[in-house]
Amino acid sequence: MKQNIAVIGGDARYIELIRQLNYYPEFTTTISGFNKLEQGFTGAKQVDFTDLRPELFDAIVLPITGTKKAGLVETFFSDEEIYLSRKWFERLDKKTPIFTGITNDFLDKITDNTNAKVIPLLDRDDVAIYNSIPTAEGTILMAMKHTDYTIHSSRIIVTGFGRVGHTVANKFQALGANVSVAATKIRDLARITEMGLDSIPLHLLEDYTDECDILINTIPAPVIQKTAIQHLPPHALIFDLASKPGGTDFEFAKQRGIKAVLSESLPGIVAPKTAGKILANVIIQILMERSSIDES
Amino acid sequence: MKQNIAVIGGDARYIELIRQLNYYPEFTTTISGFNKLEQGFTGAKQVDFTDLRPELFDAIVLPITGTKKAGLVETFFSDEEIYLSRKWFERLDKKTPIFTGITNDFLDKITDNTNAKVIPLLDRDDVAIYNSIPTAEGTILMAMKHTDYTIHSSRIIVTGFGRVGHTVANKFQALGANVSVAATKIRDLARITEMGLDSIPLHLLEDYTDECDILINTIPAPVIQKTAIQHLPPHALIFDLASKPGGTDFEFAKQRGIKAVLSESLPGIVAPKTAGKILANVIIQILMERSSIDES
Amino acid sequence: MKQNIAVIGGDARYIELIRQLNYYPEFTTTISGFNKLEQGFTGAKQVDFTDLRPELFDAIVLPITGTKKAGLVETFFSDEEIYLSRKWFERLDKKTPIFTGITNDFLDKITDNTNAKVIPLLDRDDVAIYNSIPTAEGTILMAMKHTDYTIHSSRIIVTGFGRVGHTVANKFQALGANVSVAATKIRDLARITEMGLDSIPLHLLEDYTDECDILINTIPAPVIQKTAIQHLPPHALIFDLASKPGGTDFEFAKQRGIKAVLSESLPGIVAPKTAGKILANVIIQILMERSSIDES
Amino acid sequence: MKQNIAVIGGDARYIELIRQLNYYPEFTTTISGFNKLEQGFTGAKQVDFTDLRPELFDAIVLPITGTKKAGLVETFFSDEEIYLSRKWFERLDKKTPIFTGITNDFLDKITDNTNAKVIPLLDRDDVAIYNSIPTAEGTILMAMKHTDYTIHSSRIIVTGFGRVGHTVANKFQALGANVSVAATKIRDLARITEMGLDSIPLHLLEDYTDECDILINTIPAPVIQKTAIQHLPPHALIFDLASKPGGTDFEFAKQRGIKAVLSESLPGIVAPKTAGKILANVIIQILMERSSIDES
Ligand SMILES: NC(=O)c1ccc[n+]([C@@H]2O[C@H](COP(=O)([O-])OP(=O)(O)OC[C@H]3O[C@@H](n4cnc5c(N)ncnc54)[C@H](OP(=O)(O)O)[C@@H]3O)[C@@H](O)[C@H]2O)c1
Ligand SMILES: NC(=O)c1ccc[n+]([C@@H]2O[C@H](COP(=O)([O-])OP(=O)(O)OC[C@H]3O[C@@H](n4cnc5c(N)ncnc54)[C@H](OP(=O)(O)O)[C@@H]3O)[C@@H](O)[C@H]2O)c1
Ligand SMILES: NC(=O)c1ccc[n+]([C@@H]2O[C@H](COP(=O)([O-])OP(=O)(O)OC[C@H]3O[C@@H](n4cnc5c(N)ncnc54)[C@H](OP(=O)(O)O)[C@@H]3O)[C@@H](O)[C@H]2O)c1
Ligand SMILES: NC(=O)c1ccc[n+]([C@@H]2O[C@H](COP(=O)([O-])OP(=O)(O)OC[C@H]3O[C@@H](n4cnc5c(N)ncnc54)[C@H](OP(=O)(O)O)[C@@H]3O)[C@@H](O)[C@H]2O)c1
Repeated sequence: MKQNIAVIGGDARYIELIRQLNYYPEFTTTISGFNKLEQGFTGAKQVDFTDLRPELFDAIVLPITGTKKAGLVETFFSDEEIYLSRKWFERLDKKTPIFTGITNDFLDKITDNTNAKVIPLLDRDDVAIYNSIPTAEGTILMAMKHTDYTIHSSRIIVTGFGRVGHTVANKFQALGANVSVAATKIRDLARITEMGLDSIPLHLLEDYTDECDILINTIPAPVIQKTAIQHLPPHALIFDLASKPGGTDFEFAKQRGIKAVLSESLPGIVAPKTAGKILANVIIQILMERSSIDES
Repeated sequence: MKQNIAVIGGDARYIELIRQLNYYPEFTTTISGFNKLEQGFTGAKQVDFTDLRPELFDAIVLPITGTKKAGLVETFFSDEEIYLSRKWFERLDKKTPIFTGITNDFLDKITDNTNAKVIPLLDRDDVAIYNSIPTAEGTILMAMKHTDYTIHSSRIIVTGFGRVGHTVANKFQALGANVSVAATKIRDLARITEMGLDSIPLHLLEDYTDECDILINTIPAPVIQKTAIQHLPPHALIFDLASKPGGTDFEFAKQRGIKAVLSESLPGIVAPKTAGKILANVIIQILMERSSIDES
Repeated sequence: MKQNIAVIGGDARYIELIRQLNYYPEFTTTISGFNKLEQGFTGAKQVDFTDLRPELFDAIVLPITGTKKAGLVETFFSDEEIYLSRKWFERLDKKTPIFTGITNDFLDKITDNTNAKVIPLLDRDDVAIYNSIPTAEGTILMAMKHTDYTIHSSRIIVTGFGRVGHTVANKFQALGANVSVAATKIRDLARITEMGLDSIPLHLLEDYTDECDILINTIPAPVIQKTAIQHLPPHALIFDLASKPGGTDFEFAKQRGIKAVLSESLPGIVAPKTAGKILANVIIQILMERSSIDES
Repeated sequence: MKQNIAVIGGDARYIELIRQLNYYPEFTTTISGFNKLEQGFTGAKQVDFTDLRPELFDAIVLPITGTKKAGLVETFFSDEEIYLSRKWFERLDKKTPIFTGITNDFLDKITDNTNAKVIPLLDRDDVAIYNSIPTAEGTILMAMKHTDYTIHSSRIIVTGFGRVGHTVANKFQALGANVSVAATKIRDLARITEMGLDSIPLHLLEDYTDECDILINTIPAPVIQKTAIQHLPPHALIFDLASKPGGTDFEFAKQRGIKAVLSESLPGIVAPKTAGKILANVIIQILMERSSIDES
């Protein structure tokens, strides 16, 4: 049996996401919040949100950002104002999964009450790792734009060795930079060494920043503090990839004259098509598994 | 204050381990089970085990293998038979750490009763990762010895993406092999893809073995089973790195005429000096931290 | 004895070049065509060209582009119009080397007559190889800007395996792209294979372009012709790095709706500082050797 | 029309070579000097040399080593003594190519007179580069066997950046060693730097050897001399890959207590199958081209 999917709002990544869903005869995809695009572009049927009947759908796809506070859905390709109300959620079947990038209080509360299941895709390890690739490429792009020297031979410190930090370190090393990674876990420090990178115990970061051209933070905690910044050479750059508000003392950096950039949503900027495909792949996999369970 | 360390038994790795300990003025190292070596070789004082008074030592270092069943200690460089008895353990200070590679029932029980603390070094993530480097190099050595073709362009499947599997996959890829890695976790499958390797869901392994020259197992569970082996080409090799009894159906491999090798202790064989240094580094670090805590 | 060097005109790369020269007490550097910059910026003395007396200099540095036809020198940091006349060249000592990036008919003829020695730096193998690094980074930047997918997993064909092609292939491979290189020499095809890249005999290029996302040409000859372009998928891109007019049938690409970009001077755009340093290093080395010969 | 090929003598590499020839219906392969092998093993017809009529063959394949002085052919798989006489060569058709690894005075002279064409395969750039892969793997094998530490983190100097040196440097770097390469050409020094390796001007080699664990020479000239050896640490190793007599002052190394090994024929030792295939590929390609020219 065909599954009906509603994609409600979203940015450039969602064009590819919708296309991918459309490849599968198993799904019928309806989109809302895309009326500025021609249908041929995505291949899916656009309907006004007011005409969308939630009870008909087997899955809902919301924007990466979930919703704004009051249930407002961001629509990049429409001027329609879309609000998701409690009533609306109550009309969903309890089993209907609601895909989003990240969840928030509004979604958590409303679905707690209605029993719909929010699936925050960016929390998944596989999505986070696949996404770390365009994130790292976006960081390379930033490095190229903000400097007048090559990445090759430049001195890079990456703080954090999670899903993003690992990939970022990998890529800069691949381009011939001298990369050090600052982490806390002994496991991470050992793996960093095995990879041929220099490992720095995070609490000693400040002892290493004086020989650093670009400091790239991936830790969502205030780890790039005064002392670390103070030792940076004047031409150094800080790219903070961690989710808002980042991990950098931006005030102090500014005071010291060090350029520090908080860089959000790099995958969406640098490779929306790839980013859309990553999301589509996981959504498709989850829906396929569900259906094969239902049918058995 | 100086710490007194007793190293009791051990193989080639322990020569470097003892040398490393000797570099530090903070330690006085006494060794037992090395009377076939000249003192100049390690720099440490050799005494017969019977003359060793446990109550004098701040730390004990046993062989990688811990002890044999009845408390027998393996001594590669001595004919002295060394047995560690319950009495002996009772003479130790309760805080005295007992370093070993892996622990066993004998050690666990006897120290449970005496409150001495066994520290099985190979369980530590950092030791396991550092050790994965000589392990991977040893696997390369085996591949070179057992084949008449180059690693470059050969088709390798690694099962498992833990500390050893990750490094082994890395190294074979670096030498130009076509490497696939079979794992179960979606996180691992994503990272494998990011690294430019082919990822295989472990339960589908058998669909991939028909195009495999060397199958390298790192999973300590029976995962290389009949069907996977059956599809291997006749010239294929299996290297099983997992701890005894490995993860391969060796019986069936033999029947099918596929050479399968259970390869233990590669670090000790291929790079005893590096392996000894890895152990020494961790022991030294632990003892230093202990002493700085004691003193503070 | 100090050598007097005159830098006449030049772009952003020359700021670093001048700074590097200034580090050496062995040189006194005078610059002309930079009066829009503050002196502190380069550290060198700016004089108007009319006040520059050629007979006083031991070396002349012209812009990368040499001169325009009538001897006009490009000055990015000045409105002064600088013309180099025959008379001017005659005032130079015969041994005075004239550094430039590439030479041209004007320079060749005028120096043939005056016996001054033009040294076209970009012709040198070492400069060309060092420059290939920012060139390759610039190509990565272009790829990121012109596509909505990641370089990782994209399918790249590089035509040519000279100084630039080799490095470009290296870098895209390092970022996880699937890279093929088309070349003619068997030596190159073998090295390409050794590096783990796919090799394509250049005359068979058209058989491979149907699976290509980005085609990067480095051959300064008309090698990207109709048939090769015809087989490209519609979304494909062509980056032509070869010096003007490139090696691509741009007309036909346009007709077919394939975006093709002729990309000049990438080092100067993406990494002027590195590019300036590369030139400075070679100039310094040549002048040092000259002086040690003169003195001996 | 089928081409008749005679393979006369050869080592383990030739088994694969013969097999490869046998895959092609275009060739009929006769072998001589292999009577200790069962026919099924190679698939080709073995005849005694005395029964081999040279006038019947379109191509002759001699061992890698060509011939010994008096025309003696090395046969690893036979006790038959095979001598190639002038008479024998005269019976060959003038166009018949005679494949060998390296040529020698005997072959050069005798074929000069008879007009047969000797093709020394190892001189070809493509063969030399493909062969450099098993050569480099063989060097890795040697490093593993002769040391008690890992290649990872070891300090390697490679002298020479030709076909072998380039690949050797590549591979050791890939395994995580700290690799420097000593060369003379500025082109090579630049490429070495681009690759992320340390470059050493060859004439300054001795200034770098004090921090070297393994010195690998690929230059067929006496470049590893007293001063360079003198500065090596006592535990250092020298692997000399250059053809006999190598480039090392072996006398002096011995005197200094430095182990130095002249390592010949690594491809044949470590990967005879790959080495045989490399040769077969080139022979097949040459014969195919010849035949397509003949027929056109
Ligand atoms: N800018 C973009 O375009 C973009 C794209 C993707 C992700 N992100 C953001 O990047 C950040 C990292 O994402 P991720 O997927 O790499 O996360 P992750 O896998 O959870 O990694 C986080 C890293 O930070 C370390 N860490 C966390 N809290 C720490 C603390 N208090 N002190 C020291 N270390 C700490 C972790 O170390 P332990 O493992 O030791 O805790 C780990 O190494 C997130 O904020 C994410 O939202 C941004
Ligand atoms: N031969 C040698 O010289 C040598 C040297 C070092 C280590 N070893 C041995 O090598 C083995 C691996 O060591 P390690 O440090 O890599 O261990 P590890 O980090 O724990 O990794 C083990 C891997 O096996 C997987 N695994 C475990 N049980 C599994 C099961 N039942 N089904 C599927 N996958 C399973 C794990 O996957 P999950 O993470 O998904 O569980 C993980 O990928 C051990 O047996 C160790 O003793 C041998
Ligand atoms: N866009 C930029 O920013 C930038 C930067 C640097 C250089 N460049 C330009 O890039 C081009 C390549 O520079 P390079 O330093 O790599 O030059 P190079 O080292 O001389 O390499 C040129 C390559 O093109 C091949 N080639 C030349 N003519 C050919 C023909 N007729 N047919 C087939 N192959 C041919 C050569 O092959 P063989 O060796 O077999 O002849 C070689 O592989 C030049 O035009 C240069 O000016 C542009
Ligand atoms: N052991 C084995 O198993 C094995 C396998 C294959 C090859 N080989 C041998 O390895 C050696 C290298 O082979 P290859 O294919 O790499 O040769 P190649 O491509 O000709 O390279 C030779 C290298 O040596 C340099 N060189 C030559 N003479 C020199 C001199 N007098 N001073 C300084 N540098 C000099 C060359 O530099 P320039 O380019 O600047 O001249 C080049 O870098 C040969 O002797 C070959 O027979 C041995």
